[in-house]
Amino acid sequence: MSTPTAAILIIGNEILSGRTPEGNVHYMATRLCSHGIVLRETRTIPDEESIIMDAVQTLSQKYTYVFTTGGIGATHDDITAASVAKAFHRKLILHPEALRILIAFYQDRFNETRKRLALIPEGAALIENLVSAAPGFRIGNVYCLAGIPLVMQAMFDRVLPTLTPGPTIFSKTIRCSVPENNLADELGIIQQKYTDVDIGSYPRVSFPGPYELNLVLRCTHQEHLDAATLDVIQLIQRHGQEPTVTE
Amino acid sequence: MSTPTAAILIIGNEILSGRTPEGNVHYMATRLCSHGIVLRETRTIPDEESIIMDAVQTLSQKYTYVFTTGGIGATHDDITAASVAKAFHRKLILHPEALRILIAFYQDRFNETRKRLALIPEGAALIENLVSAAPGFRIGNVYCLAGIPLVMQAMFDRVLPTLTPGPTIFSKTIRCSVPENNLADELGIIQQKYTDVDIGSYPRVSFPGPYELNLVLRCTHQEHLDAATLDVIQLIQRHGQEPTVTE
Repeated sequence: MSTPTAAILIIGNEILSGRTPEGNVHYMATRLCSHGIVLRETRTIPDEESIIMDAVQTLSQKYTYVFTTGGIGATHDDITAASVAKAFHRKLILHPEALRILIAFYQDRFNETRKRLALIPEGAALIENLVSAAPGFRIGNVYCLAGIPLVMQAMFDRVLPTLTPGPTIFSKTIRCSVPENNLADELGIIQQKYTDVDIGSYPRVSFPGPYELNLVLRCTHQEHLDAATLDVIQLIQRHGQEPTVTE
Repeated sequence: MSTPTAAILIIGNEILSGRTPEGNVHYMATRLCSHGIVLRETRTIPDEESIIMDAVQTLSQKYTYVFTTGGIGATHDDITAASVAKAFHRKLILHPEALRILIAFYQDRFNETRKRLALIPEGAALIENLVSAAPGFRIGNVYCLAGIPLVMQAMFDRVLPTLTPGPTIFSKTIRCSVPENNLADELGIIQQKYTDVDIGSYPRVSFPGPYELNLVLRCTHQEHLDAATLDVIQLIQRHGQEPTVTE
Protein backbone atom coordinates (compact mmCIF):
# COMPACT_ATOMS: atom_id res chain seq x y z
CA MET A 1 0.00 0.00 0.00
CA SER A 2 1.69 3.19 -1.12
CA THR A 3 1.42 6.28 1.04
CA PRO A 4 -0.58 9.17 -0.42
CA THR A 5 1.01 12.61 -0.07
CA ALA A 6 -0.40 16.12 0.22
CA ALA A 7 0.52 19.79 0.01
CA ILE A 8 -1.32 22.84 1.33
CA LEU A 9 -1.20 26.09 -0.65
CA ILE A 10 -2.22 29.14 1.39
CA ILE A 11 -3.23 31.99 -0.89
CA GLY A 12 -3.25 35.15 1.17
CA ASN A 13 -1.55 38.53 1.35
CA GLU A 14 -3.00 38.88 4.86
CA ILE A 15 -0.81 36.03 6.15
CA LEU A 16 2.34 37.34 4.46
CA SER A 17 1.81 40.89 5.73
CA GLY A 18 1.46 39.58 9.28
CA ARG A 19 -2.07 40.93 9.59
CA THR A 20 -3.58 37.48 10.16
CA PRO A 21 -1.88 34.46 11.77
CA GLU A 22 -2.26 31.37 9.58
CA GLY A 23 -5.05 29.28 11.07
CA ASN A 24 -5.77 26.32 8.80
CA VAL A 25 -2.66 24.18 8.36
CA HIS A 26 -2.74 22.60 11.81
CA TYR A 27 -6.39 21.54 11.40
CA MET A 28 -5.68 19.86 8.09
CA ALA A 29 -2.28 18.43 9.09
CA THR A 30 -3.61 16.48 12.09
CA ARG A 31 -6.55 15.06 10.12
CA LEU A 32 -4.48 14.12 7.07
CA CYS A 33 -2.05 12.33 9.36
CA SER A 34 -4.88 10.40 11.06
CA HIS A 35 -6.03 9.39 7.58
CA GLY A 36 -2.57 8.03 6.68
CA ILE A 37 -1.90 10.85 4.21
CA VAL A 38 1.55 12.41 4.57
CA LEU A 39 1.60 16.20 4.35
CA ARG A 40 4.91 16.95 2.61
CA GLU A 41 4.79 20.69 2.03
CA THR A 42 2.93 23.91 2.74
CA ARG A 43 3.38 27.17 0.88
CA THR A 44 1.99 30.62 1.51
CA ILE A 45 1.89 32.87 -1.56
CA PRO A 46 0.38 36.26 -2.46
CA ASP A 47 -2.91 36.81 -4.32
CA GLU A 48 -1.23 37.01 -7.73
CA GLU A 49 -2.41 35.05 -10.73
CA SER A 50 0.90 33.90 -12.20
CA ILE A 51 2.23 32.84 -8.80
CA ILE A 52 -0.94 30.89 -8.00
CA MET A 53 -0.84 29.19 -11.42
CA ASP A 54 2.81 28.18 -11.03
CA ALA A 55 2.33 26.86 -7.50
CA VAL A 56 -0.82 24.88 -8.38
CA GLN A 57 0.90 23.29 -11.38
CA THR A 58 4.06 22.43 -9.44
CA LEU A 59 2.34 21.02 -6.38
CA SER A 60 -0.40 19.10 -8.23
CA GLN A 61 2.26 17.25 -10.24
CA LYS A 62 4.30 16.48 -7.16
CA TYR A 63 1.74 15.27 -4.61
CA THR A 64 -1.34 13.04 -4.49
CA TYR A 65 -3.55 15.82 -3.12
CA VAL A 66 -3.28 19.62 -3.03
CA PHE A 67 -5.46 21.81 -0.81
CA THR A 68 -5.66 25.54 -1.41
CA THR A 69 -7.12 27.97 1.13
CA GLY A 70 -8.30 31.50 0.51
CA GLY A 71 -9.36 33.74 -2.34
CA ILE A 72 -12.65 32.12 -3.31
CA GLY A 73 -15.05 34.98 -2.49
CA ALA A 74 -16.57 37.60 -4.79
CA THR A 75 -14.34 40.63 -4.17
CA HIS A 76 -11.61 41.87 -6.53
CA ASP A 77 -8.89 40.15 -4.47
CA ASP A 78 -10.52 36.71 -4.78
CA ILE A 79 -8.73 35.28 -7.79
CA THR A 80 -8.22 31.64 -6.82
CA ALA A 81 -10.95 30.18 -9.08
CA ALA A 82 -9.78 32.12 -12.15
CA SER A 83 -6.10 31.34 -11.50
CA VAL A 84 -6.71 27.63 -10.89
CA ALA A 85 -8.85 27.45 -14.05
CA LYS A 86 -5.94 28.93 -16.02
CA ALA A 87 -3.47 26.54 -14.38
CA PHE A 88 -5.59 23.63 -15.70
CA HIS A 89 -6.26 25.34 -19.08
CA ARG A 90 -9.97 25.40 -18.35
CA LYS A 91 -12.56 28.12 -18.80
CA LEU A 92 -14.23 29.74 -15.81
CA ILE A 93 -17.95 28.98 -16.10
CA LEU A 94 -21.10 29.73 -14.13
CA HIS A 95 -21.70 26.37 -12.47
CA PRO A 96 -25.47 25.59 -12.62
CA GLU A 97 -25.56 23.64 -9.33
CA ALA A 98 -23.51 26.31 -7.52
CA LEU A 99 -25.93 28.92 -8.86
CA ARG A 100 -28.90 26.91 -7.60
CA ILE A 101 -27.33 26.59 -4.12
CA LEU A 102 -26.59 30.31 -3.93
CA ILE A 103 -30.06 31.38 -5.06
CA ALA A 104 -31.65 29.01 -2.53
CA PHE A 105 -29.41 30.39 0.25
CA TYR A 106 -29.57 34.11 -0.52
CA GLN A 107 -33.15 34.21 -1.89
CA ASP A 108 -34.09 37.91 -2.34
CA ARG A 109 -30.54 38.94 -1.34
CA PHE A 110 -29.13 37.14 -4.39
CA ASN A 111 -27.57 39.63 -6.80
CA GLU A 112 -25.06 39.97 -9.64
CA THR A 113 -22.10 40.10 -7.23
CA ARG A 114 -23.11 36.91 -5.43
CA LYS A 115 -23.50 35.28 -8.85
CA ARG A 116 -19.71 35.48 -9.09
CA LEU A 117 -19.52 32.93 -6.25
CA ALA A 118 -20.76 30.36 -8.81
CA LEU A 119 -17.82 30.96 -11.18
CA ILE A 120 -15.90 27.68 -11.11
CA PRO A 121 -13.38 26.10 -13.52
CA GLU A 122 -15.16 24.02 -16.20
CA GLY A 123 -15.33 20.35 -15.19
CA ALA A 124 -14.69 21.02 -11.49
CA ALA A 125 -16.73 19.23 -8.82
CA LEU A 126 -18.30 21.30 -6.04
CA ILE A 127 -17.31 21.01 -2.37
CA GLU A 128 -20.28 21.63 -0.10
CA ASN A 129 -20.16 24.58 2.31
CA LEU A 130 -22.55 23.98 5.20
CA VAL A 131 -21.64 27.31 6.86
CA SER A 132 -22.16 30.00 4.24
CA ALA A 133 -23.35 28.16 1.10
CA ALA A 134 -20.77 29.42 -1.45
CA PRO A 135 -19.07 26.15 -2.46
CA GLY A 136 -15.44 25.21 -2.83
CA PHE A 137 -14.42 23.03 -5.73
CA ARG A 138 -12.12 20.24 -6.81
CA ILE A 139 -10.38 20.06 -10.15
CA GLY A 140 -8.10 17.10 -10.74
CA ASN A 141 -6.26 16.53 -7.47
CA VAL A 142 -6.58 20.17 -6.35
CA TYR A 143 -9.17 21.02 -3.69
CA CYS A 144 -9.93 24.74 -3.39
CA LEU A 145 -11.25 25.65 0.04
CA ALA A 146 -12.25 28.89 1.76
CA GLY A 147 -9.72 30.81 3.86
CA ILE A 148 -12.03 31.56 6.79
CA PRO A 149 -11.24 28.77 9.28
CA LEU A 150 -14.86 27.95 10.15
CA VAL A 151 -15.77 27.59 6.46
CA MET A 152 -12.52 25.84 5.53
CA GLN A 153 -13.10 23.26 8.27
CA ALA A 154 -16.66 22.56 7.09
CA MET A 155 -15.39 22.04 3.54
CA PHE A 156 -12.40 19.94 4.59
CA ASP A 157 -14.63 17.70 6.73
CA ARG A 158 -16.68 16.93 3.59
CA VAL A 159 -13.55 16.20 1.54
CA LEU A 160 -11.53 14.04 3.96
CA PRO A 161 -13.74 10.91 3.86
CA THR A 162 -13.52 10.92 0.03
CA LEU A 163 -9.70 10.72 0.01
CA THR A 164 -7.93 7.39 -0.37
CA PRO A 165 -6.44 6.67 3.06
CA GLY A 166 -2.85 5.50 3.47
CA PRO A 167 -1.49 3.01 5.97
CA THR A 168 -2.14 4.11 9.56
CA ILE A 169 0.74 6.16 10.97
CA PHE A 170 1.25 5.08 14.59
CA SER A 171 2.88 7.51 16.96
CA LYS A 172 4.35 7.66 20.46
CA THR A 173 5.40 10.74 22.39
CA ILE A 174 7.98 10.14 25.11
CA ARG A 175 8.36 13.02 27.53
CA CYS A 176 11.20 13.69 29.96
CA SER A 177 13.45 16.51 31.10
CA VAL A 178 16.86 15.06 30.26
CA PRO A 179 18.68 17.68 28.16
CA GLU A 180 18.42 16.73 24.47
CA ASN A 181 22.18 16.96 24.04
CA ASN A 182 22.80 14.29 26.67
CA LEU A 183 20.71 11.82 24.66
CA ALA A 184 21.76 12.86 21.17
CA ASP A 185 24.42 10.23 20.41
CA GLU A 186 22.50 7.23 21.70
CA LEU A 187 19.28 8.52 20.13
CA GLY A 188 21.10 8.69 16.78
CA ILE A 189 22.08 5.04 17.18
CA ILE A 190 18.45 4.07 17.90
CA GLN A 191 17.38 6.00 14.77
CA GLN A 192 19.93 4.07 12.70
CA LYS A 193 18.68 0.77 14.13
CA TYR A 194 15.03 1.47 13.21
CA THR A 195 15.20 2.94 9.71
CA ASP A 196 11.43 3.02 9.16
CA VAL A 197 10.72 4.81 12.45
CA ASP A 198 10.87 8.59 12.22
CA ILE A 199 12.30 9.88 15.53
CA GLY A 200 12.02 13.59 16.23
CA SER A 201 13.53 15.39 19.21
CA TYR A 202 11.67 18.53 20.31
CA PRO A 203 12.94 20.47 23.31
CA ARG A 204 10.56 22.99 24.76
CA VAL A 205 12.08 26.16 26.11
CA SER A 206 9.71 28.56 27.80
CA PHE A 207 10.37 31.36 30.20
CA PRO A 208 9.46 31.01 32.96
CA GLY A 209 8.97 27.27 32.91
CA PRO A 210 10.96 24.06 33.18
CA TYR A 211 12.87 22.47 30.32
CA GLU A 212 10.92 19.67 28.69
CA LEU A 213 11.93 17.24 25.97
CA ASN A 214 9.44 15.47 23.73
CA LEU A 215 10.71 12.58 21.65
CA VAL A 216 8.18 11.73 18.97
CA LEU A 217 8.35 8.36 17.21
CA ARG A 218 6.23 7.70 14.12
CA CYS A 219 5.94 4.56 12.03
CA THR A 220 3.40 2.61 9.97
CA HIS A 221 4.51 -0.66 11.64
CA GLN A 222 3.22 -0.96 15.19
CA GLU A 223 5.81 -3.58 16.22
CA HIS A 224 8.76 -1.53 14.97
CA LEU A 225 7.36 1.50 16.77
CA ASP A 226 6.93 -0.46 20.01
CA ALA A 227 10.49 -1.80 19.85
CA ALA A 228 12.02 1.61 19.17
CA THR A 229 9.87 3.13 21.93
CA LEU A 230 11.19 0.57 24.41
CA ASP A 231 14.80 1.40 23.43
CA VAL A 232 14.16 5.13 23.96
CA ILE A 233 12.47 4.52 27.34
CA GLN A 234 15.48 2.47 28.48
CA LEU A 235 17.85 5.18 27.25
CA ILE A 236 16.05 7.76 29.38
CA GLN A 237 16.01 5.39 32.36
CA ARG A 238 19.80 5.02 32.04
CA HIS A 239 19.87 8.81 32.43
CA GLY A 240 18.00 8.43 35.71
CA GLN A 241 14.49 9.43 34.69
CA GLU A 242 11.16 7.67 34.23
CA PRO A 243 9.58 9.14 31.06
CA THR A 244 5.87 9.47 30.40
CA VAL A 245 4.64 7.88 27.19
CA THR A 246 1.50 8.89 25.31
CA GLU A 247 0.04 7.85 21.95
CA MET B 1 14.15 52.90 -3.34
CA SER B 2 13.45 49.31 -4.32
CA THR B 3 11.54 47.08 -1.96
CA PRO B 4 13.48 44.22 -0.39
CA THR B 5 11.70 40.86 -0.35
CA ALA B 6 11.84 37.85 1.95
CA ALA B 7 10.89 34.20 2.25
CA ILE B 8 10.60 31.99 5.33
CA LEU B 9 11.55 28.32 5.10
CA ILE B 10 10.19 26.23 7.96
CA ILE B 11 12.14 23.00 8.31
CA GLY B 12 10.12 20.65 10.46
CA ASN B 13 8.40 17.29 10.30
CA GLU B 14 6.60 18.22 13.51
CA ILE B 15 4.65 20.97 11.73
CA LEU B 16 3.76 18.76 8.75
CA SER B 17 2.61 15.87 10.96
CA GLY B 18 0.31 18.23 12.86
CA ARG B 19 2.11 17.61 16.14
CA THR B 20 3.13 21.24 16.56
CA PRO B 21 1.27 24.31 15.26
CA GLU B 22 3.64 26.62 13.36
CA GLY B 23 4.55 29.45 15.69
CA ASN B 24 7.20 31.65 14.05
CA VAL B 25 5.88 33.08 10.78
CA HIS B 26 3.54 35.62 12.33
CA TYR B 27 6.30 37.04 14.55
CA MET B 28 8.63 37.52 11.62
CA ALA B 29 5.94 38.66 9.15
CA THR B 30 4.78 41.58 11.28
CA ARG B 31 8.34 42.76 11.97
CA LEU B 32 9.51 42.41 8.37
CA CYS B 33 6.49 44.43 7.27
CA SER B 34 7.25 47.19 9.81
CA HIS B 35 10.77 47.25 8.39
CA GLY B 36 9.48 47.75 4.82
CA ILE B 37 10.54 44.24 3.77
CA VAL B 38 7.87 42.37 1.81
CA LEU B 39 7.43 38.73 2.81
CA ARG B 40 6.58 37.00 -0.48
CA GLU B 41 6.54 33.33 0.41
CA THR B 42 6.67 30.81 3.22
CA ARG B 43 7.34 27.09 2.82
CA THR B 44 7.23 24.24 5.28
CA ILE B 45 9.30 21.21 4.30
CA PRO B 46 10.43 17.96 5.95
CA ASP B 47 13.85 17.38 7.58
CA GLU B 48 15.36 15.88 4.41
CA GLU B 49 18.67 17.00 3.00
CA SER B 50 17.89 17.15 -0.71
CA ILE B 51 14.59 18.98 -0.11
CA ILE B 52 16.28 21.54 2.18
CA MET B 53 19.06 22.09 -0.37
CA ASP B 54 16.61 22.60 -3.24
CA ALA B 55 14.43 24.99 -1.26
CA VAL B 56 17.38 27.05 0.02
CA GLN B 57 18.83 27.39 -3.48
CA THR B 58 15.47 28.31 -5.05
CA LEU B 59 14.43 30.83 -2.41
CA SER B 60 17.85 32.48 -1.98
CA GLN B 61 17.99 33.21 -5.71
CA LYS B 62 14.46 34.58 -5.75
CA TYR B 63 14.32 36.86 -2.70
CA THR B 64 16.49 39.45 -0.96
CA TYR B 65 16.43 37.57 2.36
CA VAL B 66 15.63 34.00 3.36
CA PHE B 67 15.00 32.93 6.96
CA THR B 68 15.01 29.27 7.91
CA THR B 69 13.65 27.97 11.20
CA GLY B 70 14.34 24.63 12.81
CA GLY B 71 16.84 21.81 12.70
CA ILE B 72 19.91 23.52 14.16
CA GLY B 73 20.38 21.45 17.32
CA ALA B 74 22.71 18.50 17.96
CA THR B 75 20.39 15.49 17.54
CA HIS B 76 20.27 13.22 14.47
CA ASP B 77 17.22 15.05 13.05
CA ASP B 78 19.01 18.43 13.08
CA ILE B 79 20.39 18.61 9.56
CA THR B 80 19.87 22.26 8.63
CA ALA B 81 23.53 23.36 8.96
CA ALA B 82 24.84 20.41 6.92
CA SER B 83 22.14 20.80 4.24
CA VAL B 84 22.60 24.57 3.92
CA ALA B 85 26.38 24.09 3.69
CA LYS B 86 25.83 21.67 0.81
CA ALA B 87 23.39 24.05 -0.87
CA PHE B 88 26.15 26.70 -0.90
CA HIS B 89 28.91 24.18 -1.79
CA ARG B 90 30.67 24.88 1.49
CA LYS B 91 32.26 22.57 4.02
CA LEU B 92 30.78 22.20 7.49
CA ILE B 93 33.46 23.39 9.93
CA LEU B 94 33.85 23.76 13.69
CA HIS B 95 33.45 27.52 14.05
CA PRO B 96 36.03 28.77 16.61
CA GLU B 97 33.88 31.61 17.95
CA ALA B 98 30.83 29.32 18.25
CA LEU B 99 32.99 26.84 20.13
CA ARG B 100 34.21 29.56 22.48
CA ILE B 101 30.59 30.68 23.18
CA LEU B 102 29.44 27.10 23.86
CA ILE B 103 32.34 26.29 26.19
CA ALA B 104 31.75 29.52 28.14
CA PHE B 105 28.03 28.74 28.44
CA TYR B 106 28.16 25.02 29.26
CA GLN B 107 31.44 25.03 31.21
CA ASP B 108 31.86 21.57 32.80
CA ARG B 109 28.71 20.37 31.00
CA PHE B 110 30.39 20.91 27.63
CA ASN B 111 30.88 17.61 25.82
CA GLU B 112 31.40 16.06 22.37
CA THR B 113 27.69 16.23 21.54
CA ARG B 114 27.43 19.92 22.38
CA LYS B 115 30.51 20.48 20.22
CA ARG B 116 28.28 19.64 17.25
CA LEU B 117 26.36 22.88 17.95
CA ALA B 118 29.46 24.71 16.67
CA LEU B 119 29.33 23.00 13.26
CA ILE B 120 28.57 25.81 10.82
CA PRO B 121 29.05 26.21 7.04
CA GLU B 122 32.50 27.61 6.23
CA GLY B 123 32.40 31.38 5.82
CA ALA B 124 29.06 31.79 7.64
CA ALA B 125 28.58 34.59 10.19
CA LEU B 126 27.15 33.73 13.59
CA ILE B 127 23.78 34.97 14.86
CA GLU B 128 23.81 35.50 18.60
CA ASN B 129 21.46 33.44 20.79
CA LEU B 130 20.84 35.24 24.08
CA VAL B 131 18.53 32.48 25.34
CA SER B 132 20.45 29.23 25.05
CA ALA B 133 23.87 30.17 23.60
CA ALA B 134 24.00 27.83 20.56
CA PRO B 135 24.19 30.37 17.73
CA GLY B 136 22.30 30.60 14.44
CA PHE B 137 24.21 31.63 11.35
CA ARG B 138 24.00 33.58 8.12
CA ILE B 139 25.47 32.47 4.85
CA GLY B 140 24.91 34.73 1.85
CA ASN B 141 21.35 35.99 2.16
CA VAL B 142 20.16 32.96 4.15
CA TYR B 143 19.64 33.35 7.91
CA CYS B 144 19.34 30.06 9.78
CA LEU B 145 17.43 30.45 13.04
CA ALA B 146 16.25 28.07 15.76
CA GLY B 147 12.79 26.51 15.60
CA ILE B 148 11.89 27.03 19.27
CA PRO B 149 9.91 30.30 19.25
CA LEU B 150 11.65 31.89 22.24
CA VAL B 151 15.08 31.24 20.73
CA MET B 152 14.01 32.11 17.19
CA GLN B 153 12.68 35.46 18.41
CA ALA B 154 15.91 36.27 20.24
CA MET B 155 17.90 35.51 17.07
CA PHE B 156 15.51 37.35 14.75
CA ASP B 157 15.60 40.44 16.99
CA ARG B 158 19.41 40.52 16.53
CA VAL B 159 19.12 40.12 12.75
CA LEU B 160 16.32 42.58 11.93
CA PRO B 161 18.25 45.84 12.61
CA THR B 162 21.03 44.62 10.27
CA LEU B 163 18.67 44.23 7.27
CA THR B 164 18.34 46.99 4.69
CA PRO B 165 14.90 48.49 5.30
CA GLY B 166 12.50 49.19 2.44
CA PRO B 167 10.10 52.10 2.08
CA THR B 168 7.61 52.24 4.97
CA ILE B 169 4.41 50.34 4.22
CA PHE B 170 1.49 52.39 5.57
CA SER B 171 -1.70 50.56 6.41
CA LYS B 172 -5.31 51.29 7.34
CA THR B 173 -7.90 48.82 8.56
CA ILE B 174 -11.52 49.84 7.98
CA ARG B 175 -14.02 47.80 9.95
CA CYS B 176 -17.78 47.51 9.39
CA SER B 177 -20.46 44.85 9.19
CA VAL B 178 -21.75 45.47 5.67
CA PRO B 179 -21.68 42.10 3.86
CA GLU B 180 -18.59 41.92 1.67
CA ASN B 181 -20.65 40.99 -1.38
CA ASN B 182 -22.66 44.23 -1.16
CA LEU B 183 -19.45 46.25 -1.47
CA ALA B 184 -17.59 44.05 -3.94
CA ASP B 185 -18.31 45.89 -7.21
CA GLU B 186 -17.61 49.39 -5.92
CA LEU B 187 -14.58 48.18 -3.98
CA GLY B 188 -13.20 46.72 -7.19
CA ILE B 189 -13.60 50.14 -8.84
CA ILE B 190 -11.69 51.81 -5.97
CA GLN B 191 -8.93 49.19 -6.33
CA GLN B 192 -8.68 50.01 -10.07
CA LYS B 193 -8.49 53.73 -9.29
CA TYR B 194 -5.59 53.32 -6.82
CA THR B 195 -3.27 50.85 -8.50
CA ASP B 196 -0.49 51.17 -5.92
CA VAL B 197 -2.80 50.59 -2.95
CA ASP B 198 -3.27 46.95 -2.05
CA ILE B 199 -6.89 46.53 -0.88
CA GLY B 200 -7.80 43.28 0.87
CA SER B 201 -11.30 42.29 1.98
CA TYR B 202 -11.43 39.94 4.98
CA PRO B 203 -14.79 38.84 6.32
CA ARG B 204 -14.77 37.26 9.74
CA VAL B 205 -17.24 34.47 10.30
CA SER B 206 -17.37 33.09 13.79
CA PHE B 207 -20.03 31.06 15.51
CA PRO B 208 -21.53 32.37 17.65
CA GLY B 209 -20.60 35.95 16.89
CA PRO B 210 -21.59 38.77 14.58
CA TYR B 211 -20.38 39.11 11.00
CA GLU B 212 -17.49 41.53 10.69
CA LEU B 213 -15.71 42.84 7.63
CA ASN B 214 -12.16 44.19 7.70
CA LEU B 215 -10.95 46.09 4.67
CA VAL B 216 -7.18 46.45 4.81
CA LEU B 217 -5.46 49.06 2.65
CA ARG B 218 -1.67 49.04 2.29
CA CYS B 219 0.58 51.41 0.37
CA THR B 220 4.03 52.98 0.54
CA HIS B 221 2.53 56.41 -0.36
CA GLN B 222 0.69 57.95 2.58
CA GLU B 223 -1.34 60.35 0.39
CA HIS B 224 -2.54 57.61 -1.95
CA LEU B 225 -3.47 55.51 1.06
CA ASP B 226 -5.40 58.40 2.64
CA ALA B 227 -7.31 59.11 -0.58
CA ALA B 228 -8.26 55.45 -1.08
CA THR B 229 -9.24 55.17 2.60
CA LEU B 230 -11.59 58.14 2.21
CA ASP B 231 -13.22 56.52 -0.84
CA VAL B 232 -13.79 53.28 1.09
CA ILE B 233 -15.20 55.14 4.11
CA GLN B 234 -17.66 56.98 1.85
CA LEU B 235 -18.61 53.69 0.17
CA ILE B 236 -19.50 52.18 3.54
CA GLN B 237 -21.39 55.33 4.57
CA ARG B 238 -23.48 55.02 1.38
CA HIS B 239 -24.40 51.56 2.70
CA GLY B 240 -25.67 53.17 5.89
CA GLN B 241 -22.81 52.46 8.29
CA GLU B 242 -20.09 54.46 10.02
CA PRO B 243 -16.92 52.36 9.86
CA THR B 244 -14.11 52.39 12.41
CA VAL B 245 -10.67 53.10 11.03
CA THR B 246 -7.40 52.04 12.65
CA GLU B 247 -3.77 52.22 11.53
